[in-house]
Amino acid sequence: MRSVIPDYLAEVLESVESDTSGELAGYIPELAAADPDRLGVAFATVEGVVYGAGDIDIEFTIQSISKPFVYALALADRGFDPVLAKVGVEPSGEAFNEISLESDTGRPRNPMINAGAITVHSLTGAEDLNPTERVERVVHGLSAFAGRRLEMDERVCASEMGNAHRNLAIAHMLRSHNVLTDDARAVVDGYTRQCSVLVSTRDLAVMAATLANRGMNPLSGEQVVPEPVVRQVLSVMFSCGMYDAAGDWATQVGIPAKSGVAGGLIGALPGQIGIASFSPRLDTHGNSVRGVSLFERLSADMGLHVMEVPATARAVVRSNRVVGSGPNALRVLELQGGIGFAGAERVVREAVATSPPENRVVLDLTRVYSIDDVARRVLLEIVRRLTLDGHEVYLVDPESIVPDPDPGDGGRVTVVGSVEQVITPPH
Amino acid sequence: MRSVIPDYLAEVLESVESDTSGELAGYIPELAAADPDRLGVAFATVEGVVYGAGDIDIEFTIQSISKPFVYALALADRGFDPVLAKVGVEPSGEAFNEISLESDTGRPRNPMINAGAITVHSLTGAEDLNPTERVERVVHGLSAFAGRRLEMDERVCASEMGNAHRNLAIAHMLRSHNVLTDDARAVVDGYTRQCSVLVSTRDLAVMAATLANRGMNPLSGEQVVPEPVVRQVLSVMFSCGMYDAAGDWATQVGIPAKSGVAGGLIGALPGQIGIASFSPRLDTHGNSVRGVSLFERLSADMGLHVMEVPATARAVVRSNRVVGSGPNALRVLELQGGIGFAGAERVVREAVATSPPENRVVLDLTRVYSIDDVARRVLLEIVRRLTLDGHEVYLVDPESIVPDPDPGDGGRVTVVGSVEQVITPPH
Amino acid sequence: MRSVIPDYLAEVLESVESDTSGELAGYIPELAAADPDRLGVAFATVEGVVYGAGDIDIEFTIQSISKPFVYALALADRGFDPVLAKVGVEPSGEAFNEISLESDTGRPRNPMINAGAITVHSLTGAEDLNPTERVERVVHGLSAFAGRRLEMDERVCASEMGNAHRNLAIAHMLRSHNVLTDDARAVVDGYTRQCSVLVSTRDLAVMAATLANRGMNPLSGEQVVPEPVVRQVLSVMFSCGMYDAAGDWATQVGIPAKSGVAGGLIGALPGQIGIASFSPRLDTHGNSVRGVSLFERLSADMGLHVMEVPATARAVVRSNRVVGSGPNALRVLELQGGIGFAGAERVVREAVATSPPENRVVLDLTRVYSIDDVARRVLLEIVRRLTLDGHEVYLVDPESIVPDPDPGDGGRVTVVGSVEQVITPPH
Amino acid sequence: MRSVIPDYLAEVLESVESDTSGELAGYIPELAAADPDRLGVAFATVEGVVYGAGDIDIEFTIQSISKPFVYALALADRGFDPVLAKVGVEPSGEAFNEISLESDTGRPRNPMINAGAITVHSLTGAEDLNPTERVERVVHGLSAFAGRRLEMDERVCASEMGNAHRNLAIAHMLRSHNVLTDDARAVVDGYTRQCSVLVSTRDLAVMAATLANRGMNPLSGEQVVPEPVVRQVLSVMFSCGMYDAAGDWATQVGIPAKSGVAGGLIGALPGQIGIASFSPRLDTHGNSVRGVSLFERLSADMGLHVMEVPATARAVVRSNRVVGSGPNALRVLELQGGIGFAGAERVVREAVATSPPENRVVLDLTRVYSIDDVARRVLLEIVRRLTLDGHEVYLVDPESIVPDPDPGDGGRVTVVGSVEQVITPPH
Repeated sequence: MRSVIPDYLAEVLESVESDTSGELAGYIPELAAADPDRLGVAFATVEGVVYGAGDIDIEFTIQSISKPFVYALALADRGFDPVLAKVGVEPSGEAFNEISLESDTGRPRNPMINAGAITVHSLTGAEDLNPTERVERVVHGLSAFAGRRLEMDERVCASEMGNAHRNLAIAHMLRSHNVLTDDARAVVDGYTRQCSVLVSTRDLAVMAATLANRGMNPLSGEQVVPEPVVRQVLSVMFSCGMYDAAGDWATQVGIPAKSGVAGGLIGALPGQIGIASFSPRLDTHGNSVRGVSLFERLSADMGLHVMEVPATARAVVRSNRVVGSGPNALRVLELQGGIGFAGAERVVREAVATSPPENRVVLDLTRVYSIDDVARRVLLEIVRRLTLDGHEVYLVDPESIVPDPDPGDGGRVTVVGSVEQVITPPH
Repeated sequence: MRSVIPDYLAEVLESVESDTSGELAGYIPELAAADPDRLGVAFATVEGVVYGAGDIDIEFTIQSISKPFVYALALADRGFDPVLAKVGVEPSGEAFNEISLESDTGRPRNPMINAGAITVHSLTGAEDLNPTERVERVVHGLSAFAGRRLEMDERVCASEMGNAHRNLAIAHMLRSHNVLTDDARAVVDGYTRQCSVLVSTRDLAVMAATLANRGMNPLSGEQVVPEPVVRQVLSVMFSCGMYDAAGDWATQVGIPAKSGVAGGLIGALPGQIGIASFSPRLDTHGNSVRGVSLFERLSADMGLHVMEVPATARAVVRSNRVVGSGPNALRVLELQGGIGFAGAERVVREAVATSPPENRVVLDLTRVYSIDDVARRVLLEIVRRLTLDGHEVYLVDPESIVPDPDPGDGGRVTVVGSVEQVITPPH
Repeated sequence: MRSVIPDYLAEVLESVESDTSGELAGYIPELAAADPDRLGVAFATVEGVVYGAGDIDIEFTIQSISKPFVYALALADRGFDPVLAKVGVEPSGEAFNEISLESDTGRPRNPMINAGAITVHSLTGAEDLNPTERVERVVHGLSAFAGRRLEMDERVCASEMGNAHRNLAIAHMLRSHNVLTDDARAVVDGYTRQCSVLVSTRDLAVMAATLANRGMNPLSGEQVVPEPVVRQVLSVMFSCGMYDAAGDWATQVGIPAKSGVAGGLIGALPGQIGIASFSPRLDTHGNSVRGVSLFERLSADMGLHVMEVPATARAVVRSNRVVGSGPNALRVLELQGGIGFAGAERVVREAVATSPPENRVVLDLTRVYSIDDVARRVLLEIVRRLTLDGHEVYLVDPESIVPDPDPGDGGRVTVVGSVEQVITPPH
Repeated sequence: MRSVIPDYLAEVLESVESDTSGELAGYIPELAAADPDRLGVAFATVEGVVYGAGDIDIEFTIQSISKPFVYALALADRGFDPVLAKVGVEPSGEAFNEISLESDTGRPRNPMINAGAITVHSLTGAEDLNPTERVERVVHGLSAFAGRRLEMDERVCASEMGNAHRNLAIAHMLRSHNVLTDDARAVVDGYTRQCSVLVSTRDLAVMAATLANRGMNPLSGEQVVPEPVVRQVLSVMFSCGMYDAAGDWATQVGIPAKSGVAGGLIGALPGQIGIASFSPRLDTHGNSVRGVSLFERLSADMGLHVMEVPATARAVVRSNRVVGSGPNALRVLELQGGIGFAGAERVVREAVATSPPENRVVLDLTRVYSIDDVARRVLLEIVRRLTLDGHEVYLVDPESIVPDPDPGDGGRVTVVGSVEQVITPPH
């Protein structure tokens, strides 16, 4: 059987193919020479499967799409405080190449505008790296996100460096504020190299999936950056990733995203999927015209908006019933699915609402396949309170979803494999 | 048994209680006279249960917290296009009372700054409402969000109107750009009335829960505004709700939120919960000092950040096994949990990967408790393709999770109540 | 004999007449209905003679040309400090209706932009005037500048008041900063009345001439405002009078000037002349197209640029000679013209350079027709030092240019009517 | 006799000496090491006499005071249009190191801010100069203004170049807009050299006097730049020379001026005088604290404000009388002083007013010592019209103030040496 997903992607691709509006990035000769008709889209799941349609193996330069990944590297390499001291997280509502420094400190408003990204480049790796080592650290890190060794396009790099006037202006301004402490030209050179790294749409999808997968590359299994870093990066992408169109994107597409001037576009939906597209013609914001259309279509079709209430968030308490009668009666709360805070709350509520008169209470976790930390703690607190109220509490947990349960001070629980074991305790 | 949640809230409250930094809003005499020590926090679940600690029934004026709700009303009353034509959705990175109009059109940057909110007020109800009717429509709508009839604090209203110079300036500027078409003073008067509506922390939690619950008030069951409106409102809250501290909030707390100058603060986590706090002392951004601390604590403790990967998003394919052997062998894919796109993709993958040699294929939905639209469509497409590949396909769906399954052109499926029915078909 | 000046003006007028570019002010219906072809130009000398060509007696509303005059009234009525505390003097480089307030204080950048002019209106007359009295004080003051009682155009006034949204916005913003302390709407109403005062080109030329004539109306002889006020007003006109085209004007025309949206334009050259023109079509800066051309032509033809070195500033020492010989020899310094500091310096230099060996020194002022204060003091100091050096000093001053000369401590001087009287002293 | 002027300057110096407020420029190590107590003031007349008090022969770096002079050189070398195409003339109201580029073109707002001055440096000399040649052209030009060969302070230059981050930022930004077309770093290097030229207060006074003297160095007699260039430069100095304090300066001091960060300050009053002061401590605008006080004092004492009406502008018609009677009666208009337009107008008026019945009209220029071009033309036109009206016209012009008078079509005039020659014509 052929998978339906590539067919779906091919269909979506077809729906945008005829749109030839927009312009190639004109300010860099090498980019202006790109084939404007290239078109590709790819999905990578958090389990490392990649689906695609169109030109997903053509390589192009990563450009600004490097920004969130290198921001992640800097946060991982230096820690949050040193990076936040140098680069803010506030949306600027301005175009990508606006200087957008805070007036008093000279701190760039966020890491998605050039001023922030140039600063971030200088914050990767150890402080004492020389410029070549720093570029290597960045390329190595981007490669880890992609799951393969990435190379640089030297011609694009040289072409951009010859037209890097504005970035040089920004870097010297940052240097004048001591936001940059390295040589301004060397940092711009390194940043330009970072932007010249070659990726395919497939690579970008995997890189995005690594963000969606809490920082672990789903292909290689490497934890590229820690989970809190990923949360930070996705948050910043959500409000600052699409420059001065950030608000439109946040409302209409609702996927943390980043675009590049070579025509790439990525989106990462936490816990779900990485998406990438490639189409070189850009709109006036500098975002890929057909890329934006693709994402709008995908978000609408697939309910990928982060503010969309997932239909899956429901019904944690499958049943609340009494088994048997008399003094041996059991109160059985059967739970199901994955349990987070909201789910745990429902369990609490059931437990409180029924204020079970039965002596014995069973929490049946057989149909629960995951439970997060806060929910686990809430559950154990319920156990403890039920114990204190004089109940005997059982946890039916055949798959050890809650291993070694410790309900704390005064709590006591018996773990069993099935409700039957409580009904008819083994002699 | 007492619920653990109020205890938790009480504990969190206690942890911030000693912080008396910040100042009461000074520019409105009536607000400056508030009791600065009031402190409360409340949760409302999407099922309408409210937990709270502290002063959750004290009433205060809603102020700017009215902004997202009235934005929702305007979107519902007039539709998206007319509202978006007048008010943008881009973060401004500026303080709440900055004028922040787009330089060419005079369109306010977003509905969370005063210029946007004043415009939004004028866009509620039918165009031909008079000012009094418009205020009534707004109060009626806010009441629907709260689930009870709200009243206005006439003294605060009068006090604010006497100091509404800046809002009057903004409104006249909007009038000069024809963004406002009504009388500027009348609109400011109406907007001031909107801000003077009295709410308790409990009310705010329910109002936030209505947003978290796709626009349906979990107490009254009323669908106050349609679901797409809620998505729009939450997106805008996320990037613009905390004014010039929006980026800090988005990264550190990660909950769509809105603060009010009387000390209220709300957050809404889609599909999960509405949160509200009340503490009148404000930081320099105009946000409640202890409210911000409370939310930071709650977000960290409970993993409520929207960019947090929920631990629950996992393991949709519980097992993939063969039952029996020979020509009667069954390929059984046992699914579980709530299934969205990412989950459906895993099912597809299993189906493709195994490319089942068995003639009969069973999709067992017994442990599935929900499935969203795109996943349902993907599932049926699998069924269709398996049919076309010559398989006989069965859906085990005892709870009719997929009612009336139609796999489309060339597809065929048999729905049964249990795998056993396939193994041993009833004669 | 007919004067050559009206002919010259007629010729200049003709040279610009064919230019019909530009647009009538569109935002006020009454102004948009003006006859766009009107054209006039007038000179008024500091002695009150008016020359003109074209439509110099047609009346139109004064509009922004009122700003420098009302600024003068406010400075005269309240003194410099209270006015400077409320309105700055820095060019804003912005269009007339930009808000342009200092970010911290809310003080308008200068009195030539609307924000400044509205504030200035409120600073005329005594603080306790009611709005009607304040308007009367302004009209009375403008009339004094014009030398006749001016009236208001009630229709234009009403038309503008109905479209005063932006000015109302500005006024409320000023009120919010306590720059305005009166009711915002009442001040805008008063300011609009001020702008609706009717003047002819002839009136404007006389008003400008009053500024050129140190504040004294050359027709009526009334000292409308004190001289330091005029200096302040002219300085501000020079750098801020032409809005965002101020620099172009300062370099190319070089005359302190002010334009009005009804098509008027004035310039005042200190000590020389007031100029006014009228032509309603405006350029994109809001300045009269043909008015600007007229001023450029007049400035170039007549050397009116304030940074032009007047050809007249020369040759103060007409001769330096010795009359007679032996002990009776006279050193005679013959001075001429009007003597300011630079001239006095030349006299000092001659006196020092020659270090006259003659016992008797004569300063011959016969051909001097004026001497300013600093020059007079320098001259008397020369007299004193010559005395101390042992010379006998004579002042030939038949017209009492230096009345009652007092050379101070140790100085002594003899005043005579002619050099001859020194040569052959009367017995 | 000792001149009174040095004594006056010494007295003024003493009055400011005790003010030790302000700070040395901190951002350049070499400047921060200067002796903060240095104090000097100098006058240079348009005839090349220099008066001074205090440390007027100490050398320091010229810094921003080079800006107006190099602007003059660029205008002279390239012409107005190419320079105005690259650098505007509008005040920016911003600090010296603000970027202040026009948003669309990237053109610096004016040549007095760094962005403008850096651009102007690149516009000196021929386009094809190499950087070294360009610096030589600038130093040569500054030397011509000073009247002696100026040298560079290599240590200050190196120190500044090591801290030129902000200027490099500005230059790269200008390069990105193609306002600069040369290598950005080379231009900043050249500009830094320009700023490192060593001058004394005496030099600066002479340089300012060269501007006051229509571009001719009063010491060397060299016409350094043409007169229209000087007018342009003085106009721009007046409105932009003192950065964000330009308006205060224009109103209170009223002398076209420029300050430098090493403590220098110059002012140039057209036709009168160049002034310079030196005192290294700076106020928050970057202007010399005691320098500003000195200029305020000098302007107030000496009536040097450009908007001050010179007392000398008066009484051009000394007398208007009839000599003799009957057919031989003469109408004699005796003129005096320097005659500009305003003066000529008075002559016209007298001629018209009296509409002389006498056949013979005499214009007696004996007491006129100068007449500018427009006045000469007006005078000859009077002659022509009087001729056409049937009069016989005589010009008494013993000193050939109006050489070769040509009254034009139909005019006729007889030039004589004295009125007596008309009364009793020589036989």
